[in-house]
Amino acid sequence: MADKNKKILDPGVGASYRQRTKRIINPDGTFNVRRIGTLNVIQDAYHWLITIPWLPFIAVVTSVILSTNFLYAYIYWFIGIEYIGGAPTGFFWDDYVSALFFSVQTFTTVGYGAMSPDGQFVGLIASLEAFNGLLLSAFSTGILYGRFSRPMSKIKFSEVALLTPYKGTDDYSIQFRIINKRSNTVLHMKASVFLSLNDKNDRDGTYSHRRDFYDLSLERSSIMFMPLSWTIVHIIDKNSPLYGITLKELVERQAEMLITLNGYDETFGQDTYSYHSYVADEFEENKRFIRNFNVADNGDILLHVNDVDLREDIPPKEDKES
Amino acid sequence: MADKNKKILDPGVGASYRQRTKRIINPDGTFNVRRIGTLNVIQDAYHWLITIPWLPFIAVVTSVILSTNFLYAYIYWFIGIEYIGGAPTGFFWDDYVSALFFSVQTFTTVGYGAMSPDGQFVGLIASLEAFNGLLLSAFSTGILYGRFSRPMSKIKFSEVALLTPYKGTDDYSIQFRIINKRSNTVLHMKASVFLSLNDKNDRDGTYSHRRDFYDLSLERSSIMFMPLSWTIVHIIDKNSPLYGITLKELVERQAEMLITLNGYDETFGQDTYSYHSYVADEFEENKRFIRNFNVADNGDILLHVNDVDLREDIPPKEDKES
Amino acid sequence: MADKNKKILDPGVGASYRQRTKRIINPDGTFNVRRIGTLNVIQDAYHWLITIPWLPFIAVVTSVILSTNFLYAYIYWFIGIEYIGGAPTGFFWDDYVSALFFSVQTFTTVGYGAMSPDGQFVGLIASLEAFNGLLLSAFSTGILYGRFSRPMSKIKFSEVALLTPYKGTDDYSIQFRIINKRSNTVLHMKASVFLSLNDKNDRDGTYSHRRDFYDLSLERSSIMFMPLSWTIVHIIDKNSPLYGITLKELVERQAEMLITLNGYDETFGQDTYSYHSYVADEFEENKRFIRNFNVADNGDILLHVNDVDLREDIPPKEDKES
Amino acid sequence: MADKNKKILDPGVGASYRQRTKRIINPDGTFNVRRIGTLNVIQDAYHWLITIPWLPFIAVVTSVILSTNFLYAYIYWFIGIEYIGGAPTGFFWDDYVSALFFSVQTFTTVGYGAMSPDGQFVGLIASLEAFNGLLLSAFSTGILYGRFSRPMSKIKFSEVALLTPYKGTDDYSIQFRIINKRSNTVLHMKASVFLSLNDKNDRDGTYSHRRDFYDLSLERSSIMFMPLSWTIVHIIDKNSPLYGITLKELVERQAEMLITLNGYDETFGQDTYSYHSYVADEFEENKRFIRNFNVADNGDILLHVNDVDLREDIPPKEDKES
Repeated sequence: MADKNKKILDPGVGASYRQRTKRIINPDGTFNVRRIGTLNVIQDAYHWLITIPWLPFIAVVTSVILSTNFLYAYIYWFIGIEYIGGAPTGFFWDDYVSALFFSVQTFTTVGYGAMSPDGQFVGLIASLEAFNGLLLSAFSTGILYGRFSRPMSKIKFSEVALLTPYKGTDDYSIQFRIINKRSNTVLHMKASVFLSLNDKNDRDGTYSHRRDFYDLSLERSSIMFMPLSWTIVHIIDKNSPLYGITLKELVERQAEMLITLNGYDETFGQDTYSYHSYVADEFEENKRFIRNFNVADNGDILLHVNDVDLREDIPPKEDKES
Repeated sequence: MADKNKKILDPGVGASYRQRTKRIINPDGTFNVRRIGTLNVIQDAYHWLITIPWLPFIAVVTSVILSTNFLYAYIYWFIGIEYIGGAPTGFFWDDYVSALFFSVQTFTTVGYGAMSPDGQFVGLIASLEAFNGLLLSAFSTGILYGRFSRPMSKIKFSEVALLTPYKGTDDYSIQFRIINKRSNTVLHMKASVFLSLNDKNDRDGTYSHRRDFYDLSLERSSIMFMPLSWTIVHIIDKNSPLYGITLKELVERQAEMLITLNGYDETFGQDTYSYHSYVADEFEENKRFIRNFNVADNGDILLHVNDVDLREDIPPKEDKES
Repeated sequence: MADKNKKILDPGVGASYRQRTKRIINPDGTFNVRRIGTLNVIQDAYHWLITIPWLPFIAVVTSVILSTNFLYAYIYWFIGIEYIGGAPTGFFWDDYVSALFFSVQTFTTVGYGAMSPDGQFVGLIASLEAFNGLLLSAFSTGILYGRFSRPMSKIKFSEVALLTPYKGTDDYSIQFRIINKRSNTVLHMKASVFLSLNDKNDRDGTYSHRRDFYDLSLERSSIMFMPLSWTIVHIIDKNSPLYGITLKELVERQAEMLITLNGYDETFGQDTYSYHSYVADEFEENKRFIRNFNVADNGDILLHVNDVDLREDIPPKEDKES
Repeated sequence: MADKNKKILDPGVGASYRQRTKRIINPDGTFNVRRIGTLNVIQDAYHWLITIPWLPFIAVVTSVILSTNFLYAYIYWFIGIEYIGGAPTGFFWDDYVSALFFSVQTFTTVGYGAMSPDGQFVGLIASLEAFNGLLLSAFSTGILYGRFSRPMSKIKFSEVALLTPYKGTDDYSIQFRIINKRSNTVLHMKASVFLSLNDKNDRDGTYSHRRDFYDLSLERSSIMFMPLSWTIVHIIDKNSPLYGITLKELVERQAEMLITLNGYDETFGQDTYSYHSYVADEFEENKRFIRNFNVADNGDILLHVNDVDLREDIPPKEDKES
């Protein structure tokens, strides 16, 4: 604990800005940085195909396969469909469709044979297309597996962080809750929480755009198992950089809690990382989390994954949580 | 050792319950938590297909492939099998079977050609099915490999933990034994053992459902190689939370030892984790483990993997183990 | 920090040489070591196929596939193309091309059937080729995926390291800047910097070819996130082995900074390593880095990846950086 | 260093034996343990197929594929080859070969179509075989990739460990040398060395079969880069358990040095482990290692991988190595 709560150097997100910036980590888990000049799609194709969402991915793969087939079909049509065993009708559309079916039968290596290449040039094109089909199939298998097997945790963070009394004490604390949306168990879960706070000018009480960073001490910074949810708690005692600061001031000073989690995911057999942030607008006062599990009569514990956000008003005059 | 044996915060399994719960970790290695609202099969398909047992997995894959083929066959039959080069018999069953064979020949890309599409609409359907077949084949290859290559250890824990004298001393100890059921070697094996014990009410001698947790110190918490079995020993000396507690009280206080192991598995080239628990009902007194290996005349060591549970009564008046 | 800046044992690159050597790590990221007697291509095929650049890789795969097909085609031609359902023309070229098309149709498992084996010997060869094709296809799929999924970071190092005043102090520092060329985020980035410096002979002021190594302390040796660039700084204070040495002497003593980086790459879900070196010829004086990001009016941060090298002359008489 | 050289608990290989055993780690890198009752081939197929050598692997895969084809061929023959479009000859062999070719064409999905199923029962069998072929192909692709991508280091250990003076001192040392047989670079290489020594009975000078274990301190226990070879050195000073023991006694006491290495392998992007042992019979006195690299005139370093064993007699009266 000794080295916690103290002011630290920039954890890598930039400390000194000349004007107001947006939050550091966006709600969708990306950083508020637009990168200009990164590797393009061709230079970094695997990375791109692995990380785009499923819909664009399917669109890209389908487009590549379809346009390849359309192109080969055009070549067969141009050579003349009599060379692939078809009977020319003289109508472009009918002939092109025949050429397209031959192309698909070659690309997928179905090769019924009712149409087959008859001539050296068309034989060469068909050979190329068959290899092309195999290659694209191998490639797609690899990318598909890469997308599936990429170790990704599915940790859900509570919508807000609560500024709430710490159980059984007079201290306040800031708390948020996480849960694993998957049905597997995460082991050796560790959390780190940093606070970014804009500098205060002691003379005129204004705030600069220069950020100070603090490493917040946690009630518990790791747990061995995570079958339930985990409420991560920073106690706002005298050593805390949050001590004595009102929520209004936190908003003005663009306070942002940066969080990283990592743990061992049973399904992937690998460590996975998550990160998230709460800005001061997402801090809530006078609330406390309601436990999101209960014990059934038979002794089973029932965990309500979607209740990770469940909270209630703190009744007045109460200072102890059961 | 200094930080061992002490009371610790909840390792993540929940400390405060209002009624009696079942054991924390079930004998089958799952946690006694029913998770409501996790990602469903569609949202988390890879995870699901990777973790279900082999029989349901094979059933799912077979069902998907068969129903796809039955569906396409129905479409071909509906269009009319004369469009796939068959001769309609007028009997549904015979015609449908012909359509089904054509469907399989297309899906698997065998494409003998005795039947082949004849017409633009049926040609389109057959093209779709051929791509469909390739896609499902790529998908299955990926999932199959994912299932195989998932790093999983095959550690067997002894059925019971023994409360038994520690060799050559007057101290008691609690011991259990583990063995690798695979024929490979695990390196850098590390063990952590936690004890969960329900709170004792000192006034009336009753026990609450609130759990206390302790980090148990181990005689040895890691070994470099594990070609043999490993007996993991916690010595119940004065610093131990188990000191002076009878087995009867342990049962009443729902004592449970939570164990995590991790080590480097040569076959997968990755760290793997195992966890397990012993509840007080699985603690045995007045027994000791019998060594499960012996030396052959030629100097070979013979290890009997299935003897990991082998134990014998401690003869009266003996306090030293050879 | 206590154990930094001190002289250390050789970090593995050889300390004692009898004559002048080239730099330790080449600008292309390889070590200046020619290894004689390593495993050859056959013994270590996977490693070789995974690490050669894309152009040679494609050339190798294409050559293997083409020569396999040419060989089988020759066998079919030698047996006689009448046994594969072709009509011999008596011209080698025409017959060989027919045999080649049959070979490709078998290898890719297209199997149109216009040509098909007719005879037991040719049937055996065609069966072998079909298996051969499947095997090579499986093999290529695996290698292709292996190439794609190999965890590799794309860290760009600034061209030069700057000997420049440390902000707001009288101390000098040596600085270089790194950036991630990918659009993903690297987490828990750690840096280690070693200095190699040839021994000075205090009597005659000459330098030997024996290298001393130092572990350089860094202003910050790790950052939690790397959405921006990272300027890695060693302060040349009195404890630094670089203290009081001129750039000219550094060149003469073959000074070389050896750098290793490692961090967790989101895309691969794995730790990746990078290494690099700066020799004294790549140290620049009287320059400072210009920040390579700016804040847009809407609060977005714009990062210019290719400006990682951007630097400017330090105006005379200035000793503080904004 | 403080916690090194001391006597430690059994690192997992068994301390107490009632009779003489063979060495702990065999020269081929396996442990001298015969495991009885491990998971069998069916229960642990992936592990088995991934770890058997290439020749048995190829034999197994070929056998499975061939016997599958022979079996299906027999079924087709039994049904009658007229149902697969063949003309029965009345000779078993000729008909069976035709059935076999049809089987291969179906299994590999070549499907020329000169033979094709004609009848519902044979159509069903052929459909099964086509799926079977796809499945085995997917399976083989996965296993093949699993074999290739398994992270394995190719570290070569010197044949012997040398008991030799430590450079520039009066102390003796025990040294061995390792080299990477691959052409890639290993990063962050770490070594641990344990000594196993049979107990000495101080009364009668005999030795028991009970082993003591020591953690040997190393001159350097890790290196940052390993482009060259690495000589791992334990100095036999007064704190060493080897101090004052003759080689003859070491042989009698079955001394064995157990070594584990691990480092990050660039090609696999993963940590890999190696282990090895030297028994006292493999300790050599009065020799020293000759450096296995030299500097070319152009400053290139030439490393002779196969010279890792190169050693020479120590000339009498010399106590300093250059």
